[in-house]
Amino acid sequence: MHSSAHTPATDRYDHIVVVGVGLIGGSIAKALKAHGLARKITGLGRNRARLLAAKQAGLIDDVAESVSELAPFSLAVVCTPVDRIPQDVRALQSVASSDALITDAGSVKGHLCEVLNSQPTNGAQFIGSHPMAGSEQGGWEHADAQLFQGRMCAITPQGHDEAPIQKIERFWTALGMRTVRFQPQQHDQIVALTSHMPHATASAVASLLTPEAWPLAATGFRDTTRVAGGDAGLWTSILMENREAVAGHLKELTHVLQQFVAALEANDPQATEALLARGQIAREKWIQSTLSPEA
Amino acid sequence: MHSSAHTPATDRYDHIVVVGVGLIGGSIAKALKAHGLARKITGLGRNRARLLAAKQAGLIDDVAESVSELAPFSLAVVCTPVDRIPQDVRALQSVASSDALITDAGSVKGHLCEVLNSQPTNGAQFIGSHPMAGSEQGGWEHADAQLFQGRMCAITPQGHDEAPIQKIERFWTALGMRTVRFQPQQHDQIVALTSHMPHATASAVASLLTPEAWPLAATGFRDTTRVAGGDAGLWTSILMENREAVAGHLKELTHVLQQFVAALEANDPQATEALLARGQIAREKWIQSTLSPEA
Repeated sequence: MHSSAHTPATDRYDHIVVVGVGLIGGSIAKALKAHGLARKITGLGRNRARLLAAKQAGLIDDVAESVSELAPFSLAVVCTPVDRIPQDVRALQSVASSDALITDAGSVKGHLCEVLNSQPTNGAQFIGSHPMAGSEQGGWEHADAQLFQGRMCAITPQGHDEAPIQKIERFWTALGMRTVRFQPQQHDQIVALTSHMPHATASAVASLLTPEAWPLAATGFRDTTRVAGGDAGLWTSILMENREAVAGHLKELTHVLQQFVAALEANDPQATEALLARGQIAREKWIQSTLSPEA
Repeated sequence: MHSSAHTPATDRYDHIVVVGVGLIGGSIAKALKAHGLARKITGLGRNRARLLAAKQAGLIDDVAESVSELAPFSLAVVCTPVDRIPQDVRALQSVASSDALITDAGSVKGHLCEVLNSQPTNGAQFIGSHPMAGSEQGGWEHADAQLFQGRMCAITPQGHDEAPIQKIERFWTALGMRTVRFQPQQHDQIVALTSHMPHATASAVASLLTPEAWPLAATGFRDTTRVAGGDAGLWTSILMENREAVAGHLKELTHVLQQFVAALEANDPQATEALLARGQIAREKWIQSTLSPEA
């Protein structure tokens, strides 16, 4: 693990390609515009009408439906669903100059980095990224130039030289992020715990809500299930891509929930309080860690 | 179920007693002050120093450590932990005039109402309330006069006359709440689903967090586990008081989580997406219901 300790210098780009102009891609484009970091941003996607609307809204300068339409670019950021990233990166590599860089915004990195980094490329290098920012509201209409501000971006750069890695790190820090390096498999195990398992759990909790209970669902229910409002299709790709780690953490969670059931059925306040205290303490330590200057 | 459709008239009180001046009791006192609804508010509690500090801070006008110190009052609101409410209500009834009213802010109502309403009282009547507002931060230092604004308060008034019920409803609506009437057992089943089971689940998710995962725990984890930051002792009382309903809903949840595990282990995106869609749709219907004017 290697954290960015200081704010590094900022690069300026002649031409950046954003593949997939949804919430994340749109927010990257908007943040690049806000910081004046790119002379030109091209949005590449399958829906020309949506891309033209994003151009009209000022997020991107140009649109393309295929890599063959792209002018030379120095950086491309692939923001498509995780199961589409490998093919999108390969398509970019087929047209990119060898000094271009390609990164992504995918939530799962193991399979992706294995597929894309297993053999050396003559063309543009791919360095995996996972900007930890998002919203349950999809689409570039919800794009926010501040979405990345103060958030963490995981980089999975194993096998690459320092110069391109640092270039990718500078890209994300220019958008306001802090960066941290991980091995792809380790990254996936961790986000299964911090994001994918909690997402499935929030969804499971939400699915039990019945209309008669609506009047008594309050802010606790709203926050506990917020992420369950996210796009089911997008999250299916993420959960499938990381399915072993997610299933493993869901089993651990189920085990803890069974301990709660046992404590309640035994009418055992000590056991119940011990379980609650474990959660409270684990969370509090994390919150404290985010408040420390080196976090 | 009987919802308050119109903003009713507001009563003014000569003397209100708040038993337990923590986050909820303190916020009630602060809201009463903000709206000028009580000539005098007495805080009753076990810690005189804390009460005097709350008086110093302007939340209450007078302090008492025992019901024997209380001047005549027209309304008392018991905001102590659920397992202490019955004895606190009985103590108040032992000194209250027969036209006084007593309510509470407890999260579980079945056992409480059974104990307190099973035999007629010559003295002050008790009508159960559950203001659905709170925070994971306890103590009157976090009291907020706006805490109740726009939130729902469940009333469990079975067996009482309309006049005192409506008086209790006017009390909460004066603090900005909407009210809804429930049978105590039905209330408990519902809040087990919307609040107590999600609380135990948030705690279980939080308890699995390890320090190596801290850098990649983001806003999704924060919100999903927010309620787990609540006081473990207080929540133990709540979960124990409603243990059968909570255990039942935790078992249902475990069943859904096992379906997630099965879908992931079978590498079945259709089954995974169907589970996620169930959660997304159930939550969306609820969110829509809160946006309708009659909600």
